[in-house]
Amino acid sequence: MSAKQQIARLALSLVVEPGDARLRDLLAVHPPERVLLAVRGGTHLPGHRIPEVWTERASDLDGRVERARSRADAAGLRWVCPGDRDWPSALGDLDHVVPLHGTAGAPLGLWVRGAANLAALCAKGVALVGARDCTTYGAEVASDLGADLTDAGWTVVSGAAYGIDGCAHRGALAMGGATVAVLACGADLDYPRSHASLLARIADDGLVVSEQAPGESPLKGRFLSRNRIIAALSRGTIVVEAAVRSGSLNTLNWADQLGRTTMGLPGPVTSKSSGGVHLAVREGKAVLVTDARDVVEELGGLGAEHEQLEIPATEFDRMSPVMQATLDGLDWRQQRTPIEIAAAVRLSAREVRAALGDLERRGLVSRTDGGWVLVRRADTG
Amino acid sequence: MSAKQQIARLALSLVVEPGDARLRDLLAVHPPERVLLAVRGGTHLPGHRIPEVWTERASDLDGRVERARSRADAAGLRWVCPGDRDWPSALGDLDHVVPLHGTAGAPLGLWVRGAANLAALCAKGVALVGARDCTTYGAEVASDLGADLTDAGWTVVSGAAYGIDGCAHRGALAMGGATVAVLACGADLDYPRSHASLLARIADDGLVVSEQAPGESPLKGRFLSRNRIIAALSRGTIVVEAAVRSGSLNTLNWADQLGRTTMGLPGPVTSKSSGGVHLAVREGKAVLVTDARDVVEELGGLGAEHEQLEIPATEFDRMSPVMQATLDGLDWRQQRTPIEIAAAVRLSAREVRAALGDLERRGLVSRTDGGWVLVRRADTG
Repeated sequence: MSAKQQIARLALSLVVEPGDARLRDLLAVHPPERVLLAVRGGTHLPGHRIPEVWTERASDLDGRVERARSRADAAGLRWVCPGDRDWPSALGDLDHVVPLHGTAGAPLGLWVRGAANLAALCAKGVALVGARDCTTYGAEVASDLGADLTDAGWTVVSGAAYGIDGCAHRGALAMGGATVAVLACGADLDYPRSHASLLARIADDGLVVSEQAPGESPLKGRFLSRNRIIAALSRGTIVVEAAVRSGSLNTLNWADQLGRTTMGLPGPVTSKSSGGVHLAVREGKAVLVTDARDVVEELGGLGAEHEQLEIPATEFDRMSPVMQATLDGLDWRQQRTPIEIAAAVRLSAREVRAALGDLERRGLVSRTDGGWVLVRRADTG
Repeated sequence: MSAKQQIARLALSLVVEPGDARLRDLLAVHPPERVLLAVRGGTHLPGHRIPEVWTERASDLDGRVERARSRADAAGLRWVCPGDRDWPSALGDLDHVVPLHGTAGAPLGLWVRGAANLAALCAKGVALVGARDCTTYGAEVASDLGADLTDAGWTVVSGAAYGIDGCAHRGALAMGGATVAVLACGADLDYPRSHASLLARIADDGLVVSEQAPGESPLKGRFLSRNRIIAALSRGTIVVEAAVRSGSLNTLNWADQLGRTTMGLPGPVTSKSSGGVHLAVREGKAVLVTDARDVVEELGGLGAEHEQLEIPATEFDRMSPVMQATLDGLDWRQQRTPIEIAAAVRLSAREVRAALGDLERRGLVSRTDGGWVLVRRADTG
């Protein structure tokens, strides 16, 4: 992508409401600089009308660009767009989904606060979202899950809102991990206000991003269009607490549209806060998960197991099914007895004991006072 | 089935441990009186060995029958078996399942305490089982569910154990409904002891049943074989709270083997008591349900809706999908606004309002101060 195209994208993002499906359709057939020219001139492109409001807004385009850039500079934001090294190509999937409430398309670019590489962080991104007015149960579970997923090498992506979102980010930060917050307002604004220090901490190790220009307000519709970015930056979305009509289910819908893994963490049926999650699981729109282990399993399948185990795939594939299952039942830190492993993976304790012996000889597991754990290999080449 | 066959069944049930899959296999090819003759004589039948222990036990058969009958008379138990009007034919499904721990087959008959008709009660039977050491959450949810299912015209079938089972029965009794307890010991025994008055109340309106002879103890293996009867007497099984290795999951397995509906009611992921339920849902072995409405929907599908709505199937089938969906979103007692209905069944409020008008003209729904409810028809012929 040329520098000219990148500048055209930035300009377009300032005159067209981000996520407008009509712009997505235009960009599917015309390069951005051509679309920008048509918008500025108020001329139409073959087969496409240019909405008048775009042209009206473009009348002050230079001023808009100038203001956005100076706000961005003041807040330390960068503009990242296709062609940049840290642009997550996964966002392109948004160009191929059915519009939801008129919203569709990859963002033209993202304003980014923080030094980390967005593409690298999101290569193993997992969205963790949920109710603003969560219960203490939800808060506890979300921060544990955020922490455990971070510990397992995943990047928690969320919306920095009150409730579940904030807890998910805090859980990640507590593990010293990088986490990504996607805002519905400019990435320079602290929204919600009382999350200012949380957002600052997120930007320190991770990133605060938005497709909205610096200074833009979090208008209502922007939360829904923002949700598509959370879903697209992640390999899967987990909802922890959502009432039946919660906006968090909107993120789940986007994830589903994008072919990402959709997951729901249940709660007491007596709590309305879990009603939307239960409905989604019941209707087959989300898989039930109870902890980070379940999530990693859903996200990665066997592939992720290899990665986690740091065992070459060929070595893993050559193992007997009993050995593979036994590895599944082990953890890095938590010691497990053969009986516990057997219960978890549906083997007999005798099978597990035999497999553990073989795995120990291969240096993959080790015996401790309290049971067995996985062994980290120094280097797998 | 002849009286001779019925007597042979009773006699066999006293010398062969109920649920022994070997007897099921024998009875699949030989009539019970022929099998009894072979057992008494210690002779073999073509293709089948008669275990010696059966013959040993049969040496005192007349005494066994006499003792069982006198204990039954004293406790007011009846022997119900195939050929009797109140024998639930659904139990026959047990003759066609793969044995679990050597257990399989329909019971030879059941000892029944209480005056109700077992077949009639179980025509709409639903099993509600779970952990003995349940939490207060589980207890509350199980008794509510027992009550609501009873109110919806279903018979709660359970095992009368401490915890979830007892709560399920109590919920049913609280609605003045009949409930069925299936014991792992003789139906004349109060087990657990402190449930004596609960069992008496169950027998008043409903039934306490067992395939074990009067006076037989609840040996460990008998709980597992008893579970198959709970599952078979019901159109579906719901598990409320079960740890990962709980016996309640055994009932769910039986229900699955029998092609019945398998359901799990979730709880907090922080509670080990819900771990087995979550695992079953996660692995696709149970559908997530949150209340009686969900359960009835799973059990009945559209068929049950007709029944519930008291609308002839032909009339229902002629309705537009929007009208059908709107009916789905209504309740007999709880008033619902068009917006609530729309949210529940994924229609727009405008569609729901239009459908409600049509349904009102047909006399199927009525408008109240607080919203809309279903109308009960006096008689549908």
